[in-house]
Parts: sequence; structure tokens; C-alpha cells
Amino acid sequence: MTQAAQQMFDRHRETLDQAVTAITNRSFWTPYPESMRTYPEDAVKAAPSKFESLLNQPFALHATGSTQQVGGEVSPYGFELGITYEQPNPQELIATMQGAIRDWRDAGTEVRVGVCLEILSRLNAISPEIAQAVMHTSGQGPMMAFQAGGPHAQDRGLEAVAYAWQAMAQIPATTKWVKPQGKHDPIAMDKRFHIVPRGISLVVACSTFPTWNTYPGLFASLATGNPVIIKPHPGAILPVAMTTRVAQQVLEEAGFDPCLVSLVPDTVDAPLTKALALDPAVKLIDFTGSNAFGDWLIKNATQAQVFAEKAGINTVIIDSVDNLKAITANLAFSLSLYSGQMCTTPQAIYVPRSGIETADGHVSFDDVAAALAKAVQAFLSDNDRACTVLGALQSRETQARIDECRGLGEIVLDSEPRAHTQFSNARIHTPLILKVDAEQKAAYSEERFGPISFVIATENTAHSIELARDVIREKGAITLGGYTTDEVVAEQFEELAMEVATPLSLNLDGGIFVNQSAAFSDFHATGGNPAANASLCNQAFVASRFVVVQSRRHSQSN
Amino acid sequence: MTQAAQQMFDRHRETLDQAVTAITNRSFWTPYPESMRTYPEDAVKAAPSKFESLLNQPFALHATGSTQQVGGEVSPYGFELGITYEQPNPQELIATMQGAIRDWRDAGTEVRVGVCLEILSRLNAISPEIAQAVMHTSGQGPMMAFQAGGPHAQDRGLEAVAYAWQAMAQIPATTKWVKPQGKHDPIAMDKRFHIVPRGISLVVACSTFPTWNTYPGLFASLATGNPVIIKPHPGAILPVAMTTRVAQQVLEEAGFDPCLVSLVPDTVDAPLTKALALDPAVKLIDFTGSNAFGDWLIKNATQAQVFAEKAGINTVIIDSVDNLKAITANLAFSLSLYSGQMCTTPQAIYVPRSGIETADGHVSFDDVAAALAKAVQAFLSDNDRACTVLGALQSRETQARIDECRGLGEIVLDSEPRAHTQFSNARIHTPLILKVDAEQKAAYSEERFGPISFVIATENTAHSIELARDVIREKGAITLGGYTTDEVVAEQFEELAMEVATPLSLNLDGGIFVNQSAAFSDFHATGGNPAANASLCNQAFVASRFVVVQSRRHSQSN
Repeated sequence: MTQAAQQMFDRHRETLDQAVTAITNRSFWTPYPESMRTYPEDAVKAAPSKFESLLNQPFALHATGSTQQVGGEVSPYGFELGITYEQPNPQELIATMQGAIRDWRDAGTEVRVGVCLEILSRLNAISPEIAQAVMHTSGQGPMMAFQAGGPHAQDRGLEAVAYAWQAMAQIPATTKWVKPQGKHDPIAMDKRFHIVPRGISLVVACSTFPTWNTYPGLFASLATGNPVIIKPHPGAILPVAMTTRVAQQVLEEAGFDPCLVSLVPDTVDAPLTKALALDPAVKLIDFTGSNAFGDWLIKNATQAQVFAEKAGINTVIIDSVDNLKAITANLAFSLSLYSGQMCTTPQAIYVPRSGIETADGHVSFDDVAAALAKAVQAFLSDNDRACTVLGALQSRETQARIDECRGLGEIVLDSEPRAHTQFSNARIHTPLILKVDAEQKAAYSEERFGPISFVIATENTAHSIELARDVIREKGAITLGGYTTDEVVAEQFEELAMEVATPLSLNLDGGIFVNQSAAFSDFHATGGNPAANASLCNQAFVASRFVVVQSRRHSQSN
Repeated sequence: MTQAAQQMFDRHRETLDQAVTAITNRSFWTPYPESMRTYPEDAVKAAPSKFESLLNQPFALHATGSTQQVGGEVSPYGFELGITYEQPNPQELIATMQGAIRDWRDAGTEVRVGVCLEILSRLNAISPEIAQAVMHTSGQGPMMAFQAGGPHAQDRGLEAVAYAWQAMAQIPATTKWVKPQGKHDPIAMDKRFHIVPRGISLVVACSTFPTWNTYPGLFASLATGNPVIIKPHPGAILPVAMTTRVAQQVLEEAGFDPCLVSLVPDTVDAPLTKALALDPAVKLIDFTGSNAFGDWLIKNATQAQVFAEKAGINTVIIDSVDNLKAITANLAFSLSLYSGQMCTTPQAIYVPRSGIETADGHVSFDDVAAALAKAVQAFLSDNDRACTVLGALQSRETQARIDECRGLGEIVLDSEPRAHTQFSNARIHTPLILKVDAEQKAAYSEERFGPISFVIATENTAHSIELARDVIREKGAITLGGYTTDEVVAEQFEELAMEVATPLSLNLDGGIFVNQSAAFSDFHATGGNPAANASLCNQAFVASRFVVVQSRRHSQSN
């Protein structure tokens, strides 16, 4: 342990204490402001040119073992990044990381947590640059790439550190155990307790939220003593490469082997994830991505604890509303934001086929669907705003899916391409909204990743709840929205939420959206349905990342 | 929720608070005295006849669905119990249990914990009867059956409840989340957080510690809202049947469906464990038993979180000692207690082939081995004491294993049968100690369950440590004992303990034994090596048994 490392802890101690308070009372808190205006104007302005200066050349990291260069990222805004990254030999890297475990373990909780907090603090400072990298890999719009890729991702990382700190702090370093022996002298034992990491931690990052979905696992594992391999999605390497560089710099300054956080990029043609995931040294796996691969990991990487966030059928149930315009505006934002490429975007919207009651009287099913379509159209009528909100489609597969899905129902709102003023080849498409009957379950109960949603005609709200229960039990969900003016129905939604272990957002009609969750307060996913087996973040997310090894000996004195 | 249930919580609140304090500072504490003398004399005296009154007839429990009677327990002390138990139809039982989840979930943390504490309190009161059942199924001697089957098992159950309480108490029931909006009004959301159980919990009990190894999983799952199926070992049903009866009585008194704790006994010829473990409704599995079956569960029951305690190569390394007589006496007790049928009994004892230093001068390898043999002989020279300490061999397989292992090395102490004064057919055998060279790894690096141990000649202590590291990394271990007078070597043992994630007992030479662990202070197993993937008990043992489901809505008032 170096003095530098201890100073990092001291510097961030107050932030840590506040974070622990926040995860306990779950009120609003963040040390990382989400408004770009609070960051230095120069840094914000310089970010695009800094990003451009990275293009078409190697991106250097501390790399271990023999390496080859891989790359091939293409911005969803229509240009090749041309960046290459060193790919370490996995076996050599794992051997080196195992050699670095002991120092990191023995550094102790304060030092490890201090290093994590310093990494987060420096990541926060380069949020404008991270935003550029996130934008041009994920396709997120600039504002979202800044917020979700920068401060909100850092929030989730800090949240994981706070949980890890809290869990490790429960274990005393030493204790004296004194057992009475009746008339005889008591037996006294001196005991020591050590926090021991599980082993190598593998974080498999995704292409849509390369930082937000990576930071919880990265920081939960690192804080608890495990070296972390980040395996980026081949289409979104840069944001995690920048993250790795910061982590390595801080580790080195603190006196540790920078390989404790290492990047192992691969390519679509020569993927490495399965081999890494099955390596006996890998004891922890964090994964965000498809159900198929997540399920494969859970079934096959049984030597590791797998934390998997997959996909589900996010659901909205509309029973009755006060102000239809306010709720359709709210939903229009959720359906449009990042072109529905969030793991939280609603896909299935259940509405009674007899229509709903509103403060302005009865509205038919068709009129509810039409109101939603109209709200999306209105919201996206300004093309600049549309491009900013929609962002670009991350992959060609998502673009193709829009065409594939058109025939699944009656089109309420067709998807259309949009032209970006700055990036003429950007892959931008507005939402497709389809109208289907409850019986067309095959259409709406499969995940249709991207800007595709279904307004589903049901017999009544009880039927909506029943369908949602069946679909979510089978396929999972990360979000559930409910709209009702009836408290009895609201309690039925609450019961449904518990039955299918999905968080409920009730009657959102303003500046809070079903697809957004707030760190330190909202648990993202519950881990209790097929969409995810873990929640970001909670105790269970950190508690199994370390073990406690004790020793005991007779006390030399009572 | 009934008033009775709330009263249970109030009655035991102080015990709960003390338990939480104990798991936090890990000092000595227990509410369940281990001395039989502190229990009512009448109850202790009446226990054998109460046990006899249960023999040769059905044991009635609240059973759900169509049932058949199963049984067939044989006391290791040499007689058939003749007790039969209802075997519910698993599918019908699971359906009924699922119907009972909601009430148990909605009862809330205090009520569930109160019910658990009342069950434990009543189990404590019938410890003398439980001891009889444990003795005549596991083969434990009467004193151990009382302590390990009664108060020590209850300690571990209470410890699990305390961890569950602590984990659930971290989640606030509600919060108000207020996000500033610059010049605009803040956004305020009211949030509710619900503790939601995972689903059906399956506890697969073992034949050697039917209560001690069952209570942690049973109480951790029940406290967090999960209905529990106990699947007893066909050879040790009665102790968990008695436990189930108490649990059902308390649940019923508290106003809940007694099926929330249910027994599903099976037979060797028609085992049910695999079918139960693969049932999609089963989300939690606690297992104690063989490596083969534990690994099968982890690889196949991937729909569930599996907490498995399997087996390993428990290890002692002797480097140097002050008083050889004191340490061989200590080890003689550990090797003899319950005929080495504890998951914590040492099997591999590494000693330098050049011998060791003692306060009385150098002692050769052969003399160390001989001293150990002599200590065991002396300890077991009184046949009554021997029978009490050794207990009986639970299975014929363990008896047969003694003969199978005789040829694995040079016999230092041969195993001999002993005759019990009261039970003439009791299966009682003294320890077999073999001398082998470090190269005979095949002999000592396989688990030899029962009273079989190896004194292994190594090049030196560094070699002993290296061998222990290799064997434990591959096969696991639950205990590690070290003997040295050199603090440098002591730190090497400490490092080894961390590397192989096995708790270290250093220089035990008195009334504490390597194979015994104290609830609230010693973590039993770490979960970090192949012998077990979970520790009894810690945060990780409870945190993934429930999920948190939240709801949020705009506040009606700030």
C-alpha cells in the first residue's frame, strides 16, 4: 500500500459516506451532476476534436503478454472509427492478473475503495470525452451519451462501491472470543478475518450502454479485490478502453499493477467471450446482452457466479387516465428515446378494447392508439430534436428488424428514416407502433429490440394484468408502467409487480419516464424474473464477490 | 398477519438484537446453552422414552395432496426405527405452497422473523428429544447429538435469521425522492419497496448432521419469505420431521398455512431429489452431501441459486510444536469425535519426514506419527468414553471404507470395533491412521469419509504448504490446522489459508478443536474452494434469497 492510495481514500471519504447514506434511505443524491453546463466549458467544447484525434490509430493501454491489434468499430452516425486496440493473450493475461491479486487483496478495503473512488472521480472529469465515445459506438444522441454514458454510469459505479464498502465493513478485522467455562477459566481465542477475492472477474460489456452496464460489475469486483477483465462488444470498444486507461493510470499511481483492470477486445469473426467465460480462473461474470447468450453463460459457466442482465417484454398497462395527452406525451418520449434501444423501453402496451375512461370522457381503443401515435409524431416533428432524442440505431440488425416487424400488426405509426444535419449517413429511424389483438401473442411476446412497440387490445384491465403476468413470468421484464385513476387497480398493479418481480412506475405523466431509473434510489431490474438474475445494485450484487477467511489461535492473555 | 405473530416478534426481539450484535462483532454469544444440565431434568430424563414412543408407527405432519407412506430408518446403534412418514405428491405440494407465498410475503419482515424465532425457541425446548432422534439416525454419540443436533444447530438457524433480518432491514419500506430542477419546482416521487421471495426453497438434508446442516438454509429462506421443502436423507428423517412439526405448529398458531414448511421424504430406491431440484418453481437449493451430487446440482439446477456444502481434504500441517503431547491429545479428539464423520475432521496431516522441533528436542517423523496413534489409543482406552465420543458409523459404506483403505499406507494405528454396553449391534469403530509418503498423493488426496487419516511425510514445511495448496485448490477443504512455534511460518499458514480460502486454526492444544466452529463467530466453510460454494452464515448466504420490487409515483404534495 502506498501513501498515494490512502490519500485517495481520504479525499473521497465524504463522498463514500454520502453514497452509503443514499443507498440506505434511497433519496435523491449524486456527486456527478448530469447537466453538461456544470462541467468546464472548455472541456465540453474540446470533446469532439479530442475524439477525432483518437481516430484511425492505435489506442494504447497497458497490455500484458503477446498481443495482436483488433478493431473495426463503425459509428452508427456513419463513419469508421479506424481505432485499433491491443488484444492480450488471455492465458498470459490471466496468469499475470493472478500474480497481482495478492497485493491488491492485502491492500485492504480502504485502499481498494479509495482507488475505485479516484477512478470514478477522474472518469467524471472526462465525461465530455466519454460522451463522444459512447455516442459514436452506441449511437446514443449527444445529450444521452453524456448523461447515461458519463455521470449516470458513474453513479452506478459508485453505488456498487458503496454496497461493496458496506458489505466488507460488516466484517471486523479481528475479534477476541471468550467462552465461559463455568468454574474454570474461560477459553479465549484471538481471531483474524480477511476479505479474500473470488478470483478473476469478467465483465462482458454491451454495445448500447458500454459504460452504464459495465461500471457496476467492474467496480463491485474491483473494490472487493478481484482483478477485472473487460471484454467489450466489438462494436463499442472505445468507451471501455478509455475507462480502462483511467483505471490503469490510477492503479499505477497508487502502486499497483495496472493489469488489475485489463481490456480484452475481440472481433465478431473471432469472439473470445465463451473461452474467457469458461476459464477455471474466472469466478465472476457480469453480462449484459441477449437472452440466448446470458442463458448460455448461466448454464455453462457454472464455475463462476454469473450476474446477467438480458432482455424482457417491458410492459405498460393502461386502465384509465386523467389527462390522456400528458400520458401519451410521457410515453412518446419513452418510445423515442434512443430509438427504443434501452433495456427498459416499453414494448407491450395493454389497453382494453372497449377503451378507457379519462377526465374528458370515454376514449376508444383506437383513439388511445391514435393519441399515442400523434404524441410521438408531435414530439419528433422538429427534426433536430428528433435526431438528438432518437440517436442512431446501433446495428444493422435493429434497422432490419423494423422492416421484419411491420407485418406483425396493423400499423398505427410507421417508422421513417430521418436525415441528420451533421452526419448524413447516420442510421436514424422513428418508432414503429403496431396495433394487435391480445390473441396475437406471438407478435408482442417476443422481444423486438429497437423502436418497435405494440398497442394490445384486451378484454379489460383484469385481462391486461393476466396477459402481462403470463408474458413476464415466461419472458421477463425490466420495467412495468401502469396507468389508472382507481386506487384498487393501482394496488392490483402493485401486486402484479411483486408477482412478476418487476418495478412499477405508476401514472407517469411528467418529467420522469418508465425507462429511466435513478441510481441510489431505483433498483434497476430485480433479478427475480427471466430478464435478469441480478439487480443493479443491491447487497446480493456484491456479497458473493468475496469470501471471508479467518484464523484463530488461543489468546496469549485474557 | 395475526396478533399472535406480532407477539412472537416482540417476545424474541431482544434475542434478535443480540444475535445481530454477535454476528457483527463475532464475539462469544448464544441464547441456547450447550450444557444439558441447564435444561429441565425431567425433560432430559424423559427423552429416551419419548423417542421410543415414536417408534414403529406413522409420524404425523400436516401433509398436502395425495400421499404415500415411506420410511425405513435404521439406527446406527443397531435397530430399525419402524417409523413411517407421509410423502406428499411434489407437484400438488408445490402448487399449494405457491398459493401460500403471498400471505407469508405480505406478513412482512417482523412477522416472518418472529415466527422463525419462535420455532427456534420451541426447538430449543425439545433439544433432549431432538438429540435422541439425531443420535439414532446419524449415529452421533449422545452428548454430541444433544449439542450439535440441538443448541448448536439452533445457533446456526438463529444466525441465518439474524443475517436475513439485517439484510431486509437495509431496505426502507418507503421513501420520498426529491430531485432539484434548478429554477423550477423539484420533481418529487413517492416510492415503496417490497421484499419479495424468490420462490420455493428446497433444503436437501444429510444423514450425519440432519439438523445442524439444515437449519441455516431453512431459516434463511423462511425468514426472507420463501416456502421451504425439506427433503431429508432417507436414513435420517426423524430429526427434520420433528423440526417440521414444530415449524408447522408455530406457522398455524401465527395464522399461516403450515405447508410453508413441508417435509418430502423419499427412499433410496425411489429418490425424489433430482426431480425436486429441477422443478422450475424451485429457486433456492441448500444441499449438504457428496461432491458428485453437489456438482450435479450446480451444473443442472441452473434455474435455482444453489448453496452447496460438499467435501474436501481437511488438512493439518505440523511444522514445530512446544508440547507434542498437548497437540496430539487435541488432534486425537478431533480424529475420534463422531468417528471422523464430520465435514470438518482432518484427513491429511503433513509432517516433515526429517521430523519436527519441540520444546523437548527433535522428534522424528515416525515418532510424531506414533505419538498421535498413542494419543488416540489413550483417549479411547476407556470403552464407555470411547463409545460416547466415537458414536456409531452412520452407514455400512463408511464401515466398509475402513477395510478398503487399510492398504493405502503403512498402518500407524489400526481401526478396531468396539462393543457398546447398551446397544450390542452398534456400528462402532476406532480411527485408522496411515503413514504415507508425499508421493502417494492418490491415497490422501481423495476424500476418505469416516475415521481414516493420513500422516504424510514431506520434504519440509514449505513442501507441506505446497502440497496442501495443490490438494485444496483441486479438492477443497473446510478446515485447516497449523502447528508452528515460528511466527514466520504462522504467517505462511495465514497466507495459505487465504490462497485456498480455508479457515485456519493455529496451534490448538486445549479445549478448542479444528473440527468445531462456533456460531456467530466462526464462519463455517468460506464458499471459496471446491468443498463448498457458500459459507454458514454470511451476507451472501441470505442476500440472494429475496429480491426488492419497488413502485414509484409522483408525490401528491411536496
